[in-house]
Amino acid sequence: MAVEPYRLTATQASAKIRAGELTVEEYARSLLSHIEERDPVVKAWEYLNPEQVIAQAKAMDAIPPEKRGPLHGVAIAVKDVIYTKGQRILACKTTTTEFAATVQGPKTVNPHGTNRTPGGSSSGSGAAIADFQAPIGLGTQTGGSTIRPGSFNGIYALKPTWNSITREGQKIYSLILDTLGFFARSVEDLQLMADVFDLKDDEPPKDTFAIKGAKFALLKTMVWPQAGPGTKSAMAKAAELLKAHGAEVEEIEFDPELEELPQWHATVLHSDGRSAFLPDYRAAKDQLHEFLISHVDNTNKISRAEQLEAFDNIAIARPKVDKMLAKYDAVLVPSVVDEAPEGTSSTGSAAFNAPWTALHVPVVNIPGFKGPNGMPVGVSLVAPRYHDRHLLVVSKAVGEIFEAEGGWKSAL
Amino acid sequence: MAVEPYRLTATQASAKIRAGELTVEEYARSLLSHIEERDPVVKAWEYLNPEQVIAQAKAMDAIPPEKRGPLHGVAIAVKDVIYTKGQRILACKTTTTEFAATVQGPKTVNPHGTNRTPGGSSSGSGAAIADFQAPIGLGTQTGGSTIRPGSFNGIYALKPTWNSITREGQKIYSLILDTLGFFARSVEDLQLMADVFDLKDDEPPKDTFAIKGAKFALLKTMVWPQAGPGTKSAMAKAAELLKAHGAEVEEIEFDPELEELPQWHATVLHSDGRSAFLPDYRAAKDQLHEFLISHVDNTNKISRAEQLEAFDNIAIARPKVDKMLAKYDAVLVPSVVDEAPEGTSSTGSAAFNAPWTALHVPVVNIPGFKGPNGMPVGVSLVAPRYHDRHLLVVSKAVGEIFEAEGGWKSAL
Repeated sequence: MAVEPYRLTATQASAKIRAGELTVEEYARSLLSHIEERDPVVKAWEYLNPEQVIAQAKAMDAIPPEKRGPLHGVAIAVKDVIYTKGQRILACKTTTTEFAATVQGPKTVNPHGTNRTPGGSSSGSGAAIADFQAPIGLGTQTGGSTIRPGSFNGIYALKPTWNSITREGQKIYSLILDTLGFFARSVEDLQLMADVFDLKDDEPPKDTFAIKGAKFALLKTMVWPQAGPGTKSAMAKAAELLKAHGAEVEEIEFDPELEELPQWHATVLHSDGRSAFLPDYRAAKDQLHEFLISHVDNTNKISRAEQLEAFDNIAIARPKVDKMLAKYDAVLVPSVVDEAPEGTSSTGSAAFNAPWTALHVPVVNIPGFKGPNGMPVGVSLVAPRYHDRHLLVVSKAVGEIFEAEGGWKSAL
Repeated sequence: MAVEPYRLTATQASAKIRAGELTVEEYARSLLSHIEERDPVVKAWEYLNPEQVIAQAKAMDAIPPEKRGPLHGVAIAVKDVIYTKGQRILACKTTTTEFAATVQGPKTVNPHGTNRTPGGSSSGSGAAIADFQAPIGLGTQTGGSTIRPGSFNGIYALKPTWNSITREGQKIYSLILDTLGFFARSVEDLQLMADVFDLKDDEPPKDTFAIKGAKFALLKTMVWPQAGPGTKSAMAKAAELLKAHGAEVEEIEFDPELEELPQWHATVLHSDGRSAFLPDYRAAKDQLHEFLISHVDNTNKISRAEQLEAFDNIAIARPKVDKMLAKYDAVLVPSVVDEAPEGTSSTGSAAFNAPWTALHVPVVNIPGFKGPNGMPVGVSLVAPRYHDRHLLVVSKAVGEIFEAEGGWKSAL
């Protein structure tokens, strides 16, 4: 029996639509019927109008092949801090936390364990992609809002190099931290998005990457004491699998002078939030989360001197860390503290993501491992800035191993 | 005879409206009647609907005093790369160059010499404020788009510390360079805007500043060989006036390792434009200026490595330059190459502004000097990052002297 259209990756759906084997309308109806069944449980959508989607799908089917774009007819789950307008894709809006800036969870649950958070702030995009309600999702990351839901939902997630993709139309939290990110169930789909947004390294990466003979590093980072059992075992298993497949894995550490990187990130975040949320504070302070009010009120009493010191120290660290990462094909780092915690009131900690967001480097979450309660746990690969295409090629090879031998399989 | 309302500064108009001596409608009618007379010549407006303005003014007069904001009824000329929506101010849109990103001038002329450019890309805001068509203007600066029109139009202009004011709703060219800026005919009005946007230094500045005994530096910068006669004589006269009023003026130079700062700025600008204009390029390349097409096509073949080196070198320079500037009450630097050139096809060079934009420091253009053809020439004062309020206090004292004794007076 042929696979139901809603289960296709974006690359697969796109190929079938292009080949005339699937109409956009058939594809949309398959997704909508699956969403109708699952939405009462997962609650990933902030805005979705089935009639509008069908009308849009019919209109897309009427467009002659030569006028179609690379994502023609593909469904995209768009985090609700990104403005959308009529595009030739099926874009609907997924849930997020307030301005993607707090950890207070929306209504969405984790599709792998409905008593748990899907992570945040790109909560709905992460859950929808894992649950086959869309093949590709757009998220954002200022702390860990793309990589964390990627890990919690057992899917691939890419936080590209900062500013390699325009942030036009994305609500601002911190200019120097906010990064658009992608969710997918395959690395090919992340590569499709990288094509669409014209991500380019200086040197085009090889088409394939051999794990055998490759050189990896394992970097636990200064926040390792926060790691839970799921992440500890995932990191150990990941290193073991890479070695078993013939790769070198060397354990490395951050330079001790970067010890305060997490604090520098927090200082920049809080002080940038001070100007970013001033208009919202002025317009409707009573509707603003207390965390954002504390930014504008500068409750932490961060001086301009401290703010600039944090901003400058991170800037000085970037080229140094690039150099350290450049010695390896990729560096393995934790994605999360542990599997998704119980409850949906908090979307979890960004402790393991914040340093990489501040450093601007590309990060890919790779699923495949299992937490103490059987929930998915991912690990991340990082590379120097503007080595996104290289990192995706490495991630594809690594992902095949982790998915096959890491010990976790999606039951969805 | 009382001064006509359209000639009032924002601070003055606001005080009269608050005191019940002037209705918003009377104020709006005075401005509109002046604009009606002058617009056929100056052409500063991209969008202005007199009926809408009057209706808005009447609505504002009906708002009880306790519900009025600090800019209640004040007219603001908003550069047409900033989104607006219903605000309790009289906001109309002024001309700019394409996406504020090219030097190809719009229709607007310099009100002091109508065969000359008002500068750009905040062309209309600069011209409108100089010509008494509005008291306050919003501009943006990525290269020199606020300080240059400030100088060309003989008005005050503030480019605040980068990111001290949210850029939400402003079209993106370069995240790390774009800065919202203000135009006014008095420093008090710039201070009013600094209040509204909650600009704060670590230490609140003194209310007044004595030039006698103050310590200034004069920094011609690495682009000084480009300076024309108007700027050369303005810089010399400015230093002479400060000394005559009892200040110390020491000539300083940039560290030689910063020699390539202008090239670093250009590299960051071009490579940031590559991602910023990709969506516009995809949607309507045929309508895009060739300069912006060249960004997306990366015609200059800037590698990611070169882009990052420029980005990182500027970042490393910022705290060092702050330290150098902190030794003085303010540092005097050129605002422009020279007085506004003839013709309106080019809005002029940003050579003297780009280094300061890259360094994120606050800059105030102070008018008062005269070019070879009698057109206004300004000089700038700069201070370390987040010393905007201090710089405004110093600029007020310096501006009084330059306006009185610099040799140029507005004939408008």
